[in-house]
Amino acid sequence: TAMLPRGRPRALGAAALLLLLLLIGFFLFRGDLDCERCEREASGGGGDPGSLPRSLTPRVLPDERPRSDAGWGYTALGQVSPTMGPYRRGEEEAAADLVSPPQLLQVAIVCAGHNSSRDVITLVKSMLFYRKNPLHLHLVTDAVARNILETLFHTWMVPAVRISFYNADELKPQVSWIPNKHYSGLYGLMKLVLPSALPPDLARVIVLDTDVTFASNIAELWALFAHFSDKQVIGLVENQSDWYLGNLWRNHRPWPALGRGFNTGVILLRLDRLRQAGWEQMWKLTATRELLTLPATSLADQDIFNAIIKEHPWLVQPLPCVWNVQLSDHTLAERCYSEASDLKVIHWNSPKKLRVKNKHVESFRNLYLTFLEYDGNLLRRELFGCPRPPPPGAEQLQRALAQLDEEDACFEFRRQQLTVHRVHITFLPHKPPPPQPHDVTLVAQLSMDRVQMLEALCRHWPGPMSLALYLTDAEAQQFLRFVETSVVLSTRQDVAYHVVYREGPLYPINQLRNVALAQALTPYVFLSDIDFLPAYSLYDYLRASIKQLELGSGRKAALVVPAFETLHYRFSFPSSKAELLALLDAGSLHTFRYHEWPRGHAPTDYARWREAQAPYHVQWAADYEPYVVVPRDCPRYDPRFAGFGWNKVAHVVELDAQEYELLVLPEAFVIHLPHAPSLDISRFRSSPTYRDCLQALKDEFHQDLSRRYGAAALKYLTALQQPRGPT
Amino acid sequence: TAMLPRGRPRALGAAALLLLLLLIGFFLFRGDLDCERCEREASGGGGDPGSLPRSLTPRVLPDERPRSDAGWGYTALGQVSPTMGPYRRGEEEAAADLVSPPQLLQVAIVCAGHNSSRDVITLVKSMLFYRKNPLHLHLVTDAVARNILETLFHTWMVPAVRISFYNADELKPQVSWIPNKHYSGLYGLMKLVLPSALPPDLARVIVLDTDVTFASNIAELWALFAHFSDKQVIGLVENQSDWYLGNLWRNHRPWPALGRGFNTGVILLRLDRLRQAGWEQMWKLTATRELLTLPATSLADQDIFNAIIKEHPWLVQPLPCVWNVQLSDHTLAERCYSEASDLKVIHWNSPKKLRVKNKHVESFRNLYLTFLEYDGNLLRRELFGCPRPPPPGAEQLQRALAQLDEEDACFEFRRQQLTVHRVHITFLPHKPPPPQPHDVTLVAQLSMDRVQMLEALCRHWPGPMSLALYLTDAEAQQFLRFVETSVVLSTRQDVAYHVVYREGPLYPINQLRNVALAQALTPYVFLSDIDFLPAYSLYDYLRASIKQLELGSGRKAALVVPAFETLHYRFSFPSSKAELLALLDAGSLHTFRYHEWPRGHAPTDYARWREAQAPYHVQWAADYEPYVVVPRDCPRYDPRFAGFGWNKVAHVVELDAQEYELLVLPEAFVIHLPHAPSLDISRFRSSPTYRDCLQALKDEFHQDLSRRYGAAALKYLTALQQPRGPT
Repeated sequence: TAMLPRGRPRALGAAALLLLLLLIGFFLFRGDLDCERCEREASGGGGDPGSLPRSLTPRVLPDERPRSDAGWGYTALGQVSPTMGPYRRGEEEAAADLVSPPQLLQVAIVCAGHNSSRDVITLVKSMLFYRKNPLHLHLVTDAVARNILETLFHTWMVPAVRISFYNADELKPQVSWIPNKHYSGLYGLMKLVLPSALPPDLARVIVLDTDVTFASNIAELWALFAHFSDKQVIGLVENQSDWYLGNLWRNHRPWPALGRGFNTGVILLRLDRLRQAGWEQMWKLTATRELLTLPATSLADQDIFNAIIKEHPWLVQPLPCVWNVQLSDHTLAERCYSEASDLKVIHWNSPKKLRVKNKHVESFRNLYLTFLEYDGNLLRRELFGCPRPPPPGAEQLQRALAQLDEEDACFEFRRQQLTVHRVHITFLPHKPPPPQPHDVTLVAQLSMDRVQMLEALCRHWPGPMSLALYLTDAEAQQFLRFVETSVVLSTRQDVAYHVVYREGPLYPINQLRNVALAQALTPYVFLSDIDFLPAYSLYDYLRASIKQLELGSGRKAALVVPAFETLHYRFSFPSSKAELLALLDAGSLHTFRYHEWPRGHAPTDYARWREAQAPYHVQWAADYEPYVVVPRDCPRYDPRFAGFGWNKVAHVVELDAQEYELLVLPEAFVIHLPHAPSLDISRFRSSPTYRDCLQALKDEFHQDLSRRYGAAALKYLTALQQPRGPT
Repeated sequence: TAMLPRGRPRALGAAALLLLLLLIGFFLFRGDLDCERCEREASGGGGDPGSLPRSLTPRVLPDERPRSDAGWGYTALGQVSPTMGPYRRGEEEAAADLVSPPQLLQVAIVCAGHNSSRDVITLVKSMLFYRKNPLHLHLVTDAVARNILETLFHTWMVPAVRISFYNADELKPQVSWIPNKHYSGLYGLMKLVLPSALPPDLARVIVLDTDVTFASNIAELWALFAHFSDKQVIGLVENQSDWYLGNLWRNHRPWPALGRGFNTGVILLRLDRLRQAGWEQMWKLTATRELLTLPATSLADQDIFNAIIKEHPWLVQPLPCVWNVQLSDHTLAERCYSEASDLKVIHWNSPKKLRVKNKHVESFRNLYLTFLEYDGNLLRRELFGCPRPPPPGAEQLQRALAQLDEEDACFEFRRQQLTVHRVHITFLPHKPPPPQPHDVTLVAQLSMDRVQMLEALCRHWPGPMSLALYLTDAEAQQFLRFVETSVVLSTRQDVAYHVVYREGPLYPINQLRNVALAQALTPYVFLSDIDFLPAYSLYDYLRASIKQLELGSGRKAALVVPAFETLHYRFSFPSSKAELLALLDAGSLHTFRYHEWPRGHAPTDYARWREAQAPYHVQWAADYEPYVVVPRDCPRYDPRFAGFGWNKVAHVVELDAQEYELLVLPEAFVIHLPHAPSLDISRFRSSPTYRDCLQALKDEFHQDLSRRYGAAALKYLTALQQPRGPT
């Protein structure tokens, strides 16, 4: 008070006293009060202005704390102390904690075709890796992408992820009138119609291009919705190229944009406000007007978004550049990432994608490759602090898995059978064969160590194939490169590759066969194995035989293709049955597994086959496992048989039980090529419990047979009891 | 003012006015002022209380902004607006931005032996994945771990990571007097002596157990140092088991601890203050005193840390539980992670490790497996906003790589040659062979598709082996499981497996051979290939021959082991030379590559070998590539030859140029087993540029030879010009 002027002392004295009290109060409480307020606003949890020195032990295990608390982990430090300043919780946590349990975040992606589907999966992997919230993905897809992604997500079974599909073809008429030169085609434009295409009660959504990669928790991006003013409806990152400045070349005339414009690879949309504001009319009006003077959009939806923003700049909330680091050739992105220690989303928005010229591209590529090759199974982990119902079937599966007995000789088999493998059907571009009544698809399965068989197989079989590949995520990429660099493979559009992702120690051979079988699109299938090469004429011959034998008229038959083998790994393939017989007589060829397991193919009756001019009937016998052509709707393989025993035998028993005729084709043959034993075989053939288990599985299989076929199944059990060789 | 009491109106009026002004000011500015202060405290960057509505374009590309700014990304939102509340920056960013460029973080780890070295690498991978700061790792190691980790980090070349090694054996006397029952052994106790063992100018360090996994940016952990009071020196997370409560079983008598005690898997150490406070005396005193009544430590260093904290509770800063989620069998960790959305560090602190019983273990295991199988090459990415000098050699390499011509037929070869592969020597426990003057190590290299050869090789070669394996990180784990489940392999301690991590499209065969060769520890090496099985007697016979031929006395000789092959993949191995010759005569065996490339082994003179009773000299000839036994200090393989051509031929030229005698051993032989062509072969043999490139590489090799050996090298060039078959 010494510095107060002398006049009106009492009034001023009182005022000063008040001021003093106020100031004291202000300085005493501002930190606590204020940060408590901030804490609550940002996180929904309360701050804890505890006293110092803090007591140690009883607080660290807060059994009694309510669940809505910010979390055990933050108790000890969620305090304010004058010596250390307020302890501030992370933006990420703050975002994740906005409500408790964590808020459901909404994401929309437009995706069409085989290649974009692969891209979406990489994007989703990066998103899932960092996320801590439940997600609802809204996927606008064409039929191809829907087929792929529906199967994938159904088998992926990621907890706390919900998927909705929207038919892109139905949306096409709304945008197809817009001439467009961008490589994303019509699908790029579909982002414009999301406010009407997505459910009317969906108020906010993050819209992503398929070529973005997350390097952070998507909840942080979602949290930026909170910064929208009342008028703002679209959150966007500014464009990092000079495109919209219109000075890239002479007569370069881009669409109108505010300054350098905005990029639409990452969008925050207030759908509720857009609908209210008459978005549909708005963008159509703008697009129509601009198209009076401009021939077409160059950058699809992005041109139209920018034209609208130019006209109504108050609609946009600019987002921090780190949420859409744009890696095109002449990008200014470096100005963004060189100053930020923290990139959030990378956008491969050049048509060159990963081959874009950028001096830091290697670093960005590494992040992308991380998720490209990341084992998607690892993303099945549950979210903590997020009590959501598990995905369909998951709980039942958990229960079944929990009931398995680790001491059971078949423990690994039973676990493998219960494993739901992620399945990515038509991993590569594929054109379904035109419908033909007698067409036949070769069905087989393989892992990476047999990929080098594919070129030869393609040369021997010019028809459609459906192949299941058992791969890790990294191997799937290796496989992709292998196909892309092979002239033989990359020109074949009628070979469908279905990736089944590896999990567990046993090769799930029959699950793989069932995946390949389910994806065959012709009326008939040739159930083969990857180590066999068909006679060059087999595809034509089979179709002719199917027609001739009138299988189409509902005749239930399995056409047997006799199998041979060579033990030499350099080998000249016979071009006819006559040549094959000559090689057989010379000892260069043998009937398949003649040395180790003749029972497997003896019923084919090779002696008769030598002379046969017409198809002939043979009878089922124990352990018979011929390679057969059957209608596509044939019985599935029994998934209990994994690894390397009895997997095909059981299927042939099933065919016989369902009264399929067995007809051997006189001109058909396949030849098995030698190979080193695979790792899986070596590992499990030497296991002492392997044989015990296989016996147990066979017994169970026969019990199931009796249950389904009654007395008719007795013959299989009787046949089993006869003396037999090794399995 | 209407509500003010009637008395002393002027004084109160003035006071009220002041109050009003103050309140207005308070509410007008508190948000801004306050959050600006917070912002600065937390991040070192200034807030930007801009006006509303904010202008759009010129601010988003802040060319003019100073580098010390919080970063481009945050400009647009680093503002305060009354409608949205203060925008708060993330803890993570705050931590990373504490100083600019990012602060160097110090980490210490104690590590001994082969298995712990593998663990450390997984820990480091998780740390590097999330980090945004330069790191200095202080590794206290025994000789084995140092050898492994030094090679690994040297070849890993991660930017902005510095490594220092400290000799654990020298520290042993300081802790070896403490009786200890914990599985970590003596090394666990070494965390106690870090204040004196680490450099005296090192003030702060994070100390980690080898069995922890990061799920977050380590800078966030480092930021917790800021919460230490003046007296606190150790940051620890409370123990999540009941161990220190002393009620686990009858007569369970743990060391004294405060409450449930603290876990020392993750420690923040103020080394400066510890040294000042006489830490060494302090812990030794406490340990000595407790050991008067307690027989030994049960949990190594952790018992002693806890006893000290019980005595001096003001030393400890308790850390949030999420920084050390302890996954032992009866852990209370669930109370921590079920309420936190965000786990920071997982600690596998049960001796059962990943097999620990915990209902959520699957989720934690997935995080661990993520890094176990993560491609470490991807962590070579540079840090943004962190201008640090690149690791030794990296810059030079970058320059050399930049100078390569993409149009050059040999582009891939040259790039492969320049690739520095990460190398993890002695990936599995290995006992070096006892020194013997005539001992010989079998040297070979392989990739995953030849792993099934190892058991047979072990049966044929009872001596030491040094094998280089070309694997991905995920395959290395597959390989580990393969060895662990094989009785034959897991009982062999004299086979050293060196993992060379895959990178690039060509199989770097000669780089692999050089790694295996460099790690051979006997005076002689047998340079073989993985597809060959040696005669059962070969190991003994080679040692006898080396002795008999007096190679030890400086005689420069290469002993030739004649090579044969079988084309059959079922094959009974000859037990003697007589049996081999019989099979040769019967046509079941051939001399190696007799059909495709006889020149490769013709100089061995198989006709003479049939009859030979004693070693005989042969002369070098073009394209000769025998399998030889040489002293360990023989010339290295030329790394320019990658993929599948001329890689061994060049080495034999080098031997001849250095005047090694070539002596064929009459009783020695190896036999090549058939296998399917590997993917690499198929891919590159069919490439049209492959042959062109190989020719260019050969020419360059001969130019180098002339440079080094002068006129003596002329004969190799002349020999090249003779007519020849396919390479």
